[in-house]
Amino acid sequence: MTTPQLAIIGGGQLARMMASPATALGIDLRLLAEAPDVSAAQVIVNQVTGSHLDIDDLRRAVGEAPVVTFDHEHVPGDHLRTLESEGHACRPGPAALVHAQDKLVMRRRLRDLGIPSPRWAPVQSIEDVRDFGVPLILKAARGGYDGKGVWLIRDESEAVDVIANATTELLAEEFVPFRRELSAQVARSASGEVIAYPIVESRQHDGVCAEVIAPAPNLDPTLERKARRMATTIATELDVVGMLAVELFETEDDQVFVNELAMRPHNTGHWTIEGARTSQFENHLRAVLDLPLGDSAAREPWSVMVNILGGTATDLIERRAVALAAEPDVHVHLYGKSVKPGRKVGHVTATGRHLDDVLARARRSAALLTDEEVEA
Amino acid sequence: MTTPQLAIIGGGQLARMMASPATALGIDLRLLAEAPDVSAAQVIVNQVTGSHLDIDDLRRAVGEAPVVTFDHEHVPGDHLRTLESEGHACRPGPAALVHAQDKLVMRRRLRDLGIPSPRWAPVQSIEDVRDFGVPLILKAARGGYDGKGVWLIRDESEAVDVIANATTELLAEEFVPFRRELSAQVARSASGEVIAYPIVESRQHDGVCAEVIAPAPNLDPTLERKARRMATTIATELDVVGMLAVELFETEDDQVFVNELAMRPHNTGHWTIEGARTSQFENHLRAVLDLPLGDSAAREPWSVMVNILGGTATDLIERRAVALAAEPDVHVHLYGKSVKPGRKVGHVTATGRHLDDVLARARRSAALLTDEEVEA
Repeated sequence: MTTPQLAIIGGGQLARMMASPATALGIDLRLLAEAPDVSAAQVIVNQVTGSHLDIDDLRRAVGEAPVVTFDHEHVPGDHLRTLESEGHACRPGPAALVHAQDKLVMRRRLRDLGIPSPRWAPVQSIEDVRDFGVPLILKAARGGYDGKGVWLIRDESEAVDVIANATTELLAEEFVPFRRELSAQVARSASGEVIAYPIVESRQHDGVCAEVIAPAPNLDPTLERKARRMATTIATELDVVGMLAVELFETEDDQVFVNELAMRPHNTGHWTIEGARTSQFENHLRAVLDLPLGDSAAREPWSVMVNILGGTATDLIERRAVALAAEPDVHVHLYGKSVKPGRKVGHVTATGRHLDDVLARARRSAALLTDEEVEA
Repeated sequence: MTTPQLAIIGGGQLARMMASPATALGIDLRLLAEAPDVSAAQVIVNQVTGSHLDIDDLRRAVGEAPVVTFDHEHVPGDHLRTLESEGHACRPGPAALVHAQDKLVMRRRLRDLGIPSPRWAPVQSIEDVRDFGVPLILKAARGGYDGKGVWLIRDESEAVDVIANATTELLAEEFVPFRRELSAQVARSASGEVIAYPIVESRQHDGVCAEVIAPAPNLDPTLERKARRMATTIATELDVVGMLAVELFETEDDQVFVNELAMRPHNTGHWTIEGARTSQFENHLRAVLDLPLGDSAAREPWSVMVNILGGTATDLIERRAVALAAEPDVHVHLYGKSVKPGRKVGHVTATGRHLDDVLARARRSAALLTDEEVEA
């Protein structure tokens, strides 16, 4: 094996989807995988099995690689600082990543930067909930994802158990009556080059991203500009290197508020594999290796991504032929994961000129893969 | 490891470029690699090292995989028949592959099918050369590629050494005064579905493909239809499964003649990765696994692919940043090969609306990668 140019920590589908542009660009990867059969470990040859919580496993995985990046934001900051002190560039670095790891840190920083956010406050007791006022959203400051660690509190009493059982600090956020959710992605390279992707609309079911429409239909140009600038400002001020996703609420009165940050390729950017001139996965690699960034423009007027969640069908390989036969021009991505109800096991992307058609084709393909009734 | 769905014999760049669509479609691959560090062995996890000429190596590589396909056409037919007798579907099969392995077999078959070919004859002696008449092209029936095993004979005396040193049968072909070279590609699935890609123009330097322009500029629609039908007929009549490339001469008097056949993804189809709705690599996988084929239409008016041949620069990784900075929207593909003069070590593809611009961008990117003077 040659010396890897880049180590990736975490063997999920984001690392898996980095493998293809790495192959094209001739980037030798090294992977730290949770187990030899996880999603990315199926497609990255040079791999080490271990835990991202164990500094010795991290050291074994990183080896001689000059640069380290991530499939997720869960590597402890102390471990990242250790790797940095040992000569490896962590991208994004620990000082940036903490804002994606801890929602209280993120909220304080965005407030200081003047970035519009929902009203929020730290919560330690039921009195804090009372002072904030219901309804509110309670969030675990650390460790939540995909709807986990998030509770809608309509009545003060509903917060009692959450507070009693909390394993991390909590914060309250106002319930923003939003029109829809948007996502603003930028890539920022180690030397500070920043490019923005088109703003997309993200549709959630049960707190999990279900569909993404690129670009967000009928987006007010002023709001679009505001969203792009917010994402660019956050990437620059927080010194993010790699992809940044800023999940946004678009309100009924034409404002945008930051909901969440993710410092890695993001589910709301999977459409870019076929739909943009350079995918989020390729630009993440280019950014962390400090290569010039690729064009982020859309290749076609519309792209729609639909997630494949574990459903009634358990054999995706069997269903694949059915879905491809019905929609041969919809791009199917399977993550090599066993099917469990609600688990993200793949996605499909359609592109084209007419949104109704593109949306219908993507949904039909996804429904056939999961053996669900196709919506009319 | 789960049971692989597909075994690939040969670890070159074609197998490497099959890995990305296999990842997307969730196809578990098994690779027979010549060595652990060859191009495809860098990106396919489940691999066996061995020789495609050794039936036991082939058996070890194929294992339980139900389907076998190829990076090249050099596996002996007897070995393929053995694998088939042991329950593995070879796609393409030995009865098809022989036409890509032996130019005399190919010429006889095309003659029987009435497919236009250059005038040809088997050559065993200098008398055969005299009877055929110079100038002519002498070809080794087996084992030639990229200009090797091909000799332009202007004078009878030049054939003496070739005949004396021949290690396979020889054939003579007339020197066709062609206007340009074209390539017609089709994908044919195991159940007989056939789709044709746009006809492209292929420009050679020293017998090696240098540039491909898709679609072939100013191609007469009648010739285009003829070329597509020839490729479809050959794929069907020869029972090709997978990708077929038919290399063609377009003559000054508006005819097309078959030059060569290749039964695998082909250098003249690399543009399809970014330039077509479904790449030749994905459609090769779909075809051999008998999945429905994907749309072969171009995504943009023009695509240009330029090969990266080993040149003055030896460190492609170093040059990569320079090329990406100059042309961030040209797609760079490196094959993970050490640089030797004239060796194919990568390619670049540009797409767009204006051929002059697309061609200039692709050439500039390629020249920067190889550190050559950019043509004006």
